[in-house]
Amino acid sequence: MKYERVIELAKRRGFLWPSFEIYGATAGFWDFGPLGAILKRRVENLWRELYVIREGFFEIESPTIGVEDMFAASGHIDNFVDLVVDCKKCGEMFRADHLAQDVGKESTRDGVAKLIKAHNIRCPECGGELGEVRTFNLMFRTTIGPSSERVGYLRPETAQGMFVDFPRLLRFYRDKLPFGTVQIGKAYRNEISPRQGVIRLREFTLAEAEIFVDPRDKSHPRFDEVSDTVLRLYPEKEQLRGKDEIEISVKDAVKKGIILNQFMGYHLALVHLFLTGVGIKPENLRFRQHKKEEMAHYAADCWDAETLLDLGWVELVGIADRTDYDLKSHAKKSGVDMGVFVRYGKPKVVERLRIKPKMDVLGPKFKDGAAKVADALMGLRPERLDELGKESIEVDGKTMRIDPSWVECERVSEEVHGEKVAPHVIEPSYGIDRIVYALLEHSLAEEAVEGEKRLVLRLPPRVAPIQVAVLPLLTKGNLVEVAKEVALVLRENATLVEYDDSGTIGRRYRRHDEIGTPFAITIDHQTLEDNTVTIRERDSMKQIRVGIDGISDTIRGLLDGKIQFERVGTLV
Amino acid sequence: MKYERVIELAKRRGFLWPSFEIYGATAGFWDFGPLGAILKRRVENLWRELYVIREGFFEIESPTIGVEDMFAASGHIDNFVDLVVDCKKCGEMFRADHLAQDVGKESTRDGVAKLIKAHNIRCPECGGELGEVRTFNLMFRTTIGPSSERVGYLRPETAQGMFVDFPRLLRFYRDKLPFGTVQIGKAYRNEISPRQGVIRLREFTLAEAEIFVDPRDKSHPRFDEVSDTVLRLYPEKEQLRGKDEIEISVKDAVKKGIILNQFMGYHLALVHLFLTGVGIKPENLRFRQHKKEEMAHYAADCWDAETLLDLGWVELVGIADRTDYDLKSHAKKSGVDMGVFVRYGKPKVVERLRIKPKMDVLGPKFKDGAAKVADALMGLRPERLDELGKESIEVDGKTMRIDPSWVECERVSEEVHGEKVAPHVIEPSYGIDRIVYALLEHSLAEEAVEGEKRLVLRLPPRVAPIQVAVLPLLTKGNLVEVAKEVALVLRENATLVEYDDSGTIGRRYRRHDEIGTPFAITIDHQTLEDNTVTIRERDSMKQIRVGIDGISDTIRGLLDGKIQFERVGTLV
Repeated sequence: MKYERVIELAKRRGFLWPSFEIYGATAGFWDFGPLGAILKRRVENLWRELYVIREGFFEIESPTIGVEDMFAASGHIDNFVDLVVDCKKCGEMFRADHLAQDVGKESTRDGVAKLIKAHNIRCPECGGELGEVRTFNLMFRTTIGPSSERVGYLRPETAQGMFVDFPRLLRFYRDKLPFGTVQIGKAYRNEISPRQGVIRLREFTLAEAEIFVDPRDKSHPRFDEVSDTVLRLYPEKEQLRGKDEIEISVKDAVKKGIILNQFMGYHLALVHLFLTGVGIKPENLRFRQHKKEEMAHYAADCWDAETLLDLGWVELVGIADRTDYDLKSHAKKSGVDMGVFVRYGKPKVVERLRIKPKMDVLGPKFKDGAAKVADALMGLRPERLDELGKESIEVDGKTMRIDPSWVECERVSEEVHGEKVAPHVIEPSYGIDRIVYALLEHSLAEEAVEGEKRLVLRLPPRVAPIQVAVLPLLTKGNLVEVAKEVALVLRENATLVEYDDSGTIGRRYRRHDEIGTPFAITIDHQTLEDNTVTIRERDSMKQIRVGIDGISDTIRGLLDGKIQFERVGTLV
Repeated sequence: MKYERVIELAKRRGFLWPSFEIYGATAGFWDFGPLGAILKRRVENLWRELYVIREGFFEIESPTIGVEDMFAASGHIDNFVDLVVDCKKCGEMFRADHLAQDVGKESTRDGVAKLIKAHNIRCPECGGELGEVRTFNLMFRTTIGPSSERVGYLRPETAQGMFVDFPRLLRFYRDKLPFGTVQIGKAYRNEISPRQGVIRLREFTLAEAEIFVDPRDKSHPRFDEVSDTVLRLYPEKEQLRGKDEIEISVKDAVKKGIILNQFMGYHLALVHLFLTGVGIKPENLRFRQHKKEEMAHYAADCWDAETLLDLGWVELVGIADRTDYDLKSHAKKSGVDMGVFVRYGKPKVVERLRIKPKMDVLGPKFKDGAAKVADALMGLRPERLDELGKESIEVDGKTMRIDPSWVECERVSEEVHGEKVAPHVIEPSYGIDRIVYALLEHSLAEEAVEGEKRLVLRLPPRVAPIQVAVLPLLTKGNLVEVAKEVALVLRENATLVEYDDSGTIGRRYRRHDEIGTPFAITIDHQTLEDNTVTIRERDSMKQIRVGIDGISDTIRGLLDGKIQFERVGTLV
């Protein structure tokens, strides 16, 4: 498996290693070592360049611990669960749906329980009888403060922290839609028994954007900028019919209704732009639409950007139209208004009925409650009298049908300046750790060079941890001094340089091939004579000789892809 | 209180607000809003410039959830506790030491319990009798995976993640001391009832560096670079005698033994450099040494960098010589070697005694245990025979004195190439949230301008969230287009710009004063005539008129402090 080879290199060279290794490691927790952390940070910063700088979405930072009310409203307490079953004999716990997956396709609790019973599935460990199928919540639970009653959860997504901040964010954006907010931070999922190494972590980093839009108009003001982008889509229809992915422009996909709206289309294109920009090759990338049955009940449309790894297609990014579900749920639970008043271009004149409750009817009927009923009636704004009989009012939590005899009506005309809308949310949600792993797996190549095996990490220069190695050929003479000076000059130009003088030059090249350093500068005897150095390109292993003056600009140009390697100097 | 005024502004303008506010907020949790998050990120990036780029310490990223073994070894399970007491009547819980602080100075559990009994202290809420004084652990506790037996804790510091990685890090740094590793990330402290707002958070961000040094030599190779830095120190002696702080150079403080060693001195100076660099004024800064009684038992020396806020001196950074405590504790608990073999410049020839156990003596004496005793004896390496009687060996957990009659000795000479040392750790640990708050409090000024109150946030340009405001005087004519073009040009030069055309120009200036925007560019009618704009400086409110060409370099120079405001253009 390529996974093992990637992880062997990642551990040995300081990209990734299992956390708490000296205590035997714990599944689902991995450390980013010195080189892995730089790689990850470069990916995050490129993400910020796109979403924060280009799109203008401000970043915020909310806590990783969330309160119970928040996750009750969001639905995570009820729905962020796996189905599990315990063995009555040995006590081991299993994913119930996994045990039943070979005998039938069921995903509900009852369905899975029936399958287990019908097929007499027993404990895979000891053969014992299995108990009831039950749900296991995947949020890590803790308690806040000294009383054990104040429950908190580690967030399963950063999104909720932005939804509960909506009233403050709306004010910050001066009460205008659309606007976006982003967050990059830790999220958690207490997996029952994670088995896919760094692909399925219990603690991971998400980069999420929540874009709040006017639900009446999901056209994107800058749709034209991306509309010609060609995406490899795997729509629900093609999946159900067992067909292949299709290649189609964003414009056509929206026009044909494959992608729900322009806002979704725009953000699918942005995800494509980002992933190919950090180094995921387009041929390893597709957008798979969620099928009706797998889509969250509140989502109107949902796509996963997937990449092809050795273990199959793996989700890197989810892009969803979450509709007004989240804001409405929090508004309901908290009692705080989450609507946005959208002004019309010019006021509309509307004819309405003004309602006057008949207290002589309501009094005898509702006694002490009459005033409250009258209040609720005055809140109604029907346009025609016959609508009134169809409406209901809520008084003290009880819903009641209106009897037209309770009121008198008067026709009035009103100027309406706008209306209140419940914003919808478009959300791209990136799994940063998986993107980092995918870059490693896609970049790792093994080749035979002069009869020896060469391991090389072909990371794009913009994400490679060490950008340039500076290597004196020998540690004799003035080579070391000159090399250190070259390193210093490059550092001053914000280039991440590693100076390295240990071991043979061949061994040093091998090490830098393995950690993906795109260029190596070697200082040799000729340097002392004519002020030139060699630059070795990692991928081609070709070397050119260039002047030491302007080396900083040369390297910067090579890293940015603005100058071509073989044109900079003479090939040696 | 200034605190309230800072928080009012911070909430209103989007720097900070209480988390989960729509659910009534929860003490100890605060969000960084759009402007606060930028400010925080700027502080973190300046920190990286110093520790990662200048010092060359690689950053790593380990999980926020830690396993039980790790925190058992580190001592946090036993010692990261507060003393609490419950009311037997109403059930409320209190900090026991807080209840007793008016009647005596005790910090141990027994001491505080005695005070409470002796002074018959009762429940401050209901007057009821108090129960036993007990400890409450301040780590948030959770469980990992489906079994509730696998306990995990949210880390109280990022440091432990670096200590348990020591074997991997040592290999990455090619087995050589000293080296440093840093981490910026979330840490947690489940405060019993946090009352100091953003100063005492339950979830906060630490930036920590762990520098692993050779314990035999704590001189710093680049001590000279900082040795003339003058620090305001508050040594233990001055505190105990009720005296004031002293001003002294790092060099003299180390020479006089006030600061324990050069490594500590170097890092105190670095903390000073960082804090004054981000904008903490030297007159608001001091370094307070921990008194013996408050110092962690393992620390050899410990200083807090404190800043003067309205509520008194508050710790921003702790700088400690943690000795070999952490690595030794983890080595012991995990059984993994944490020593470093340090090679001598050239091998030493050492005369030693080689020990041969006398089995005819040991056999009858130790029976079945004789072989183990013999093994332990052969492990000894005394230089002289008379040393042998003073040594002990450990066999099956029992320690026994050696009787010289158990062995024969033979004199041998050996070449020794180096020795194994247990590295010591020097640690600066920064509380990033507090630094951000301190910057806000120190920067906020209220002044009367033409009879009106002006609120202005005098943040240094290098940390100010919005760097330049671009303001068309009116939304008429071509002013808007020109202004948008200016904004675009500035953005391309990586400047964070806000284009703003809403409201009167005075109102816009006020808003940008309040969020600390150092410069505002105004596009007016004259711009259309002669291609000039005005730049307004936040602090002086002075305005100059400059050419629109080269505006990007002008602004960059002003932000970097490389050009002087009044020299760039003509004052208007």
